[in-house]
Amino acid sequence: MKINFRHEIGGEKLITAIAQDFKTNEILMVANMNKKALEETLKTKTAHYWSTSRKKIWLKGESSGHTQKVKEILTDCDLDAIVMKIEQTGGACHEGYGSCFFREINLNNNVDIDNLKEDDLKIIAKRLFNPDDIY
Amino acid sequence: MKINFRHEIGGEKLITAIAQDFKTNEILMVANMNKKALEETLKTKTAHYWSTSRKKIWLKGESSGHTQKVKEILTDCDLDAIVMKIEQTGGACHEGYGSCFFREINLNNNVDIDNLKEDDLKIIAKRLFNPDDIY
Repeated sequence: MKINFRHEIGGEKLITAIAQDFKTNEILMVANMNKKALEETLKTKTAHYWSTSRKKIWLKGESSGHTQKVKEILTDCDLDAIVMKIEQTGGACHEGYGSCFFREINLNNNVDIDNLKEDDLKIIAKRLFNPDDIY
Repeated sequence: MKINFRHEIGGEKLITAIAQDFKTNEILMVANMNKKALEETLKTKTAHYWSTSRKKIWLKGESSGHTQKVKEILTDCDLDAIVMKIEQTGGACHEGYGSCFFREINLNNNVDIDNLKEDDLKIIAKRLFNPDDIY
């Protein structure tokens, strides 16, 4: 069996990688890994991703210091996605939150996903740090 | 603000969609949605995905009956991924498990991700059903 880097984005073969808090099971972020990023993650037990926008390997926390220590890695049935159970230093989100998933869609509204209004999204977390202090 | 279908796979513009058990916070699966799949999900409160292999909208559970009732939807900072807190009927995985993430990589092994051996992966869940009975 082999890890299946089957999602091709911008010419790079990738898997989906989800970071989940190893204690609370909160989902902190989701990004992509190419083969090299997964190899670096396995070797260092610290999360590395492939940045589809910057088109380079990205050690999470390389500028902020907010690294992710990898405790466990799970793979899915078709081996094209992983869940990493991690210990997060600082916060996962560059906007200052513990998790990137800090907004909830109001399912009672008839939302237009191309034009989300203020009442359609609710911030459900507290900022842990001011991004201006870190980045 | 708008949902940002920025991941282009096989010519389709997509977001990443993670299904998480609304009670236990266990991650059940990850897949993709195009705009239509997200709109159907919002309209019906039942998870629809875009199948990148079959290149069509896919109502999760359409053949197995194992549908996903959507309780909450969170969006990430750059609006290109969502977490759905769901109530899963049956199991999420077509291999008979509650979660597609039923295997753990042995981090103590020096694994070759192109040639995973029996001892490199451990099944960490119990089958809920026999796939042959369902599919």
